[in-house]
Formats: sequence, C-alpha cells, structure tokens
Amino acid sequence: MSLVTVGSVAFDAIETPFGKTDKIIGGAGTFIALSSSFYSKTQKIISVVGDDFPQSMLDVFAAKGIDLSGLQIKKGEKTFFWSGRYHNDMNSRDTLITELNVLEHFDPIIPASYQGAEYLMLGNLSPQVQRTVIERLEKRPKLIAMDTMNFWIDIAMDELKKTLALVDVLIINDEEARQLSGEYSLKKASKVIRAMGPKYLIIKKGEHGALLFHGENTFFAPALPLEDVFDPTGAGDTFAGGFIGYLAASDDISFINMKRAIIAGSALASFCVEKFGTEKLLEISHKDIEERIDEFISLANFDMLQTA
Amino acid sequence: MSLVTVGSVAFDAIETPFGKTDKIIGGAGTFIALSSSFYSKTQKIISVVGDDFPQSMLDVFAAKGIDLSGLQIKKGEKTFFWSGRYHNDMNSRDTLITELNVLEHFDPIIPASYQGAEYLMLGNLSPQVQRTVIERLEKRPKLIAMDTMNFWIDIAMDELKKTLALVDVLIINDEEARQLSGEYSLKKASKVIRAMGPKYLIIKKGEHGALLFHGENTFFAPALPLEDVFDPTGAGDTFAGGFIGYLAASDDISFINMKRAIIAGSALASFCVEKFGTEKLLEISHKDIEERIDEFISLANFDMLQTA
Repeated sequence: MSLVTVGSVAFDAIETPFGKTDKIIGGAGTFIALSSSFYSKTQKIISVVGDDFPQSMLDVFAAKGIDLSGLQIKKGEKTFFWSGRYHNDMNSRDTLITELNVLEHFDPIIPASYQGAEYLMLGNLSPQVQRTVIERLEKRPKLIAMDTMNFWIDIAMDELKKTLALVDVLIINDEEARQLSGEYSLKKASKVIRAMGPKYLIIKKGEHGALLFHGENTFFAPALPLEDVFDPTGAGDTFAGGFIGYLAASDDISFINMKRAIIAGSALASFCVEKFGTEKLLEISHKDIEERIDEFISLANFDMLQTA
Repeated sequence: MSLVTVGSVAFDAIETPFGKTDKIIGGAGTFIALSSSFYSKTQKIISVVGDDFPQSMLDVFAAKGIDLSGLQIKKGEKTFFWSGRYHNDMNSRDTLITELNVLEHFDPIIPASYQGAEYLMLGNLSPQVQRTVIERLEKRPKLIAMDTMNFWIDIAMDELKKTLALVDVLIINDEEARQLSGEYSLKKASKVIRAMGPKYLIIKKGEHGALLFHGENTFFAPALPLEDVFDPTGAGDTFAGGFIGYLAASDDISFINMKRAIIAGSALASFCVEKFGTEKLLEISHKDIEERIDEFISLANFDMLQTA
C-alpha cells in the first residue's frame, strides 16, 4: 500500500567520541524514507531542500523507489543544517548549530499523485506543518503515525495537541513521554497521552528497547545489546521508518502485526547506529535485516513450561 | 533438588515518596528464601540474627518449608539494621543508617544436614563470607549463583575476584556491571566479567528488564511496566530467589530453562515492589505468580512472518 512520509531532508555535522564528520546527509525524512524503503516499494516523500543539496543523493532516493515529486528544491536557498556533539554515554547531546534555512517557511505541497495514500508518516516537524499535511490529503489515510520532540512540547503544546488529536500512532522517546504527560511512570504516561488522541503509543527507550501500548495490550521489544553505538543520529527515525514501512508493505494494522513492525524497526535502527549518518543503511541488504531480526527472535524468545 | 541460601536476615526502615515504615523485616536472605520457596520446596538458609528478631517471622519461614538449622540466633546481640530513603525517581536512594550488629563477625556455620546441596545461592555479603560457605561445603554444588554490590567492588575487589572465580552465575545490576568491568557497553562488560569466572552473567536493569549472557547466547527479559513502584527494597533479591528456586525445583540448568527461571524471578520481583518490604510476597499465591507470568508472555511474545 502507498506510504507518504513527511520530514526534513537535511545536512548534519556530527561529533561523537569515535570521530567527527563534515556535512553529511541527514534529516528525519531521509532516515524514515531510506529505512521504510526496505519494506515498502511504493513510497513518496514530502520535504524541502535548497539547491545546495546534492543530485547524487536524490539519485540514491530514486533508486530506492522513493517518489520525489513532493520534494521541493528551493532555488538560491540553503538546505536545513544541524550540528551536534554527543557526550561520552551517547545518551545525551549538545546542539552546536541549527540553521533552519528552507525549513523556516516550509509549506508542504501534496502532488496529485500522492492523494489516496493509505499510510502517512509524519516525521518530526512543527505540529502545524504536520497538521497541514493531514488537512491537505483529500481522503484520510488508513493509518497516520507521527513523531515529535521536546522542542515542540516546550514551545507549541497547544498546536501539538491539535495535531495529536488527528493521528493514530505517536512514536516518542521516554523523556518526551514523561514531559508530554507529566507522569513519571510510563504506564501512567501512556494513558494520559492516548487520551490526547493516538490510539497507539510507541515509547522508544534507546538501548532499553521500546514499548507499544494499545487498549489494555502492552508489547515490549528489546534492543540488541551492542558493543559500540557509533552514532545514534537518525536511529529513532530509522526505527519509525522500519515500523511504518513494514505496516504499509503488509497492509495489516492488527496489534500482532504492529509487534512485528516494531521488531523490523528495531532491527533497522540497530544497523543505523553502527556508522555515521545514513552510511550503514546504504550498505545493508534485505538479507542482513532478516538475519538481524533472527537475532531479535533469539534474544527475546522464551517458552514457559507448565509448572506445579 | 536441595537449595541452600546464604544472606542477611535483617531489619529495614524505609522511606519512599509513598510513605515510611518503622522497623520491618528485610535482608537479602529473607527475600531470596521467601521468593524461592514458591518453587523450591526443600531449602535451607544460612544466616545470623540477634535475639531481638521476632519468633513470629521465624515461624513464617518454617511454614514456607525453609530449614532454619543454619540460622544462628546470637543471645544478647542485635540483628543487622539498615535504613534508607528513596528519591522521587525510585532509582536511587540514600542510606540513612547501617548497623552491622551480628553481621560484623558473621561466621557461617553449615549444619551437617545442609551438606550435599545441589544449588547454592550466595546473597549479597562480604566476598570472604561467601567464599567461606563454598569452602565449607564438602561437595561442590551443581550450580553456585551469587550477588554482590558496589560496596564490595569499592573496598574488596581482590577478595571479590577470588570468590567470582568459584561461581557459575553472577547476578548484578547494570551500574555494578559497568563498575566491575570498567566497560560502559553491557555487551563488552559481560565478556570482561565472565572472564573472571562466572560462565553465566545476569545483569538486572530494574524497570528496563534483565539480560542473561552465556557463551554467544544473550537473552533479554522485559520488566512489566508498572503504574507505581511502591518500594524497590528487596526486588533484586526476590528476582534472584525466583531464579534459583525455579532452577532448583526443575533441576535443569540449560540455557532454555535459565530463561524461564529469569521470567519467574521477574514475575516475583514485580510483586515485591507493590508494597513495603516482604508484605506482598507474604500475600501472593502460586496462582498469582502464574497469572503474572502470563502477562510477561503476552508482553514479550511476537512471531515474525516470512517476508519477501
């Protein structure tokens, strides 16, 4: 089924304890689209770049089957740029530079060929832009998933709540869930947040895995213990991309299938952190992902005997 | 199969954001023995208390099938006492009072009836005392598991390493694993620690579940998302007790069965934190545990389809 992704296509410059990069390709939309392309063969991106964005990367997107009709290229303007430095524990980072550039006045344009999409993934952007995309789709998609971040909870809570009321799945991390709900217990937080709109809530806990809440059901997906996390940038977006790509490809939004989609997303995210930026995602094959998923099965699988 | 547990039987006074207690019953040996008694019907404790310890609690132990021949009652002396206050996040605590009392010169005595035990659980105590127990057993148990804590890593690393070289399973938390190994990555830490002796390593991550490492195998057990953690005291010992009790009762130390034992321990620990001290463990039935284990199955279970 067709999948539309909205999210930034950008430049990043990253410092980790393992090294630093010059300007490399990043952005939530980039990671989501590359990751979901392993599952979903028909997908379309809505985003904006400047004319400084390399044609070679657009060719990579196209080769992955990503429809770029909704990617605006602004003449004489510059692509969004973010630079950050990770601390030694890799769990926290400082933003060094944020240049909004083309994102500052981003007005998402929906090509006619995108209408009728059944799956919509709203990458982290201002809640107004996210909502505009929903409103510009003539037919409501079967499933709308969204990401957000602490920045929007801080400065645009009212707008965020309006957008949350329109979506099916919210994908955020544990800190954001606590901030959004005002509850420390993630179980309590999940109830508060789902009362805001999303029937499904995924809370990402980084190296501690991810939780999916829906109704009275809860699923806990492990994270693969890794020797090193080389660069966490984009891991959350890669997770979201694997999740929505898996759902769109299988066109099954049952709870059982959402669990599978979370494992697929977790497997893809575990690759993402092994190299800088999108490097690892551009190297791996579907067979690599299947093997990684087998590691997740072996990691999480147990069967209880009937005991006295 | 027979199980011998060594560990403190003590008084605790606890403050949490939910309330505070007077002196209540605590101690690693107490939690381990009560927890393992749900599975292992023949078990024996080695510990020491003063004559201020209530006979009523000894009667509770006896009613649970816990052999008290190895529990020394020191006339005119006082039982070990610990008092602590948990912070709001429940993940950290301050020790307010530690009175070693009878533990200061604890010399573990092994009754003749304890000889030949096939399972030995060494609760958190000085590594010298733990090693003394191993040395005083005429026949090496089939499986020796031990707990320790940052205190011993800080002040008795050489002694700790001598004891670690003698055991099969080490059960510690993530902070302790990092401190003991000098590695931040738990996967790297697991290799360093297993090179010290224990072929099996369990790393408890509190609300984030637990990891079991053995050879090239890794198992990740989730923790049940809870609305409230009322009092974390004894949760780690309760986990260890459920683990060793399950193994002793099933007399199967395969990796597959260790996974089950970890789920049993996790289920028991999830009860422990619901009330102060041992209160909840004294209320629940085996049926309650089975139902809780079903929740863990539903929480962690997924099956992947073969995808294209």
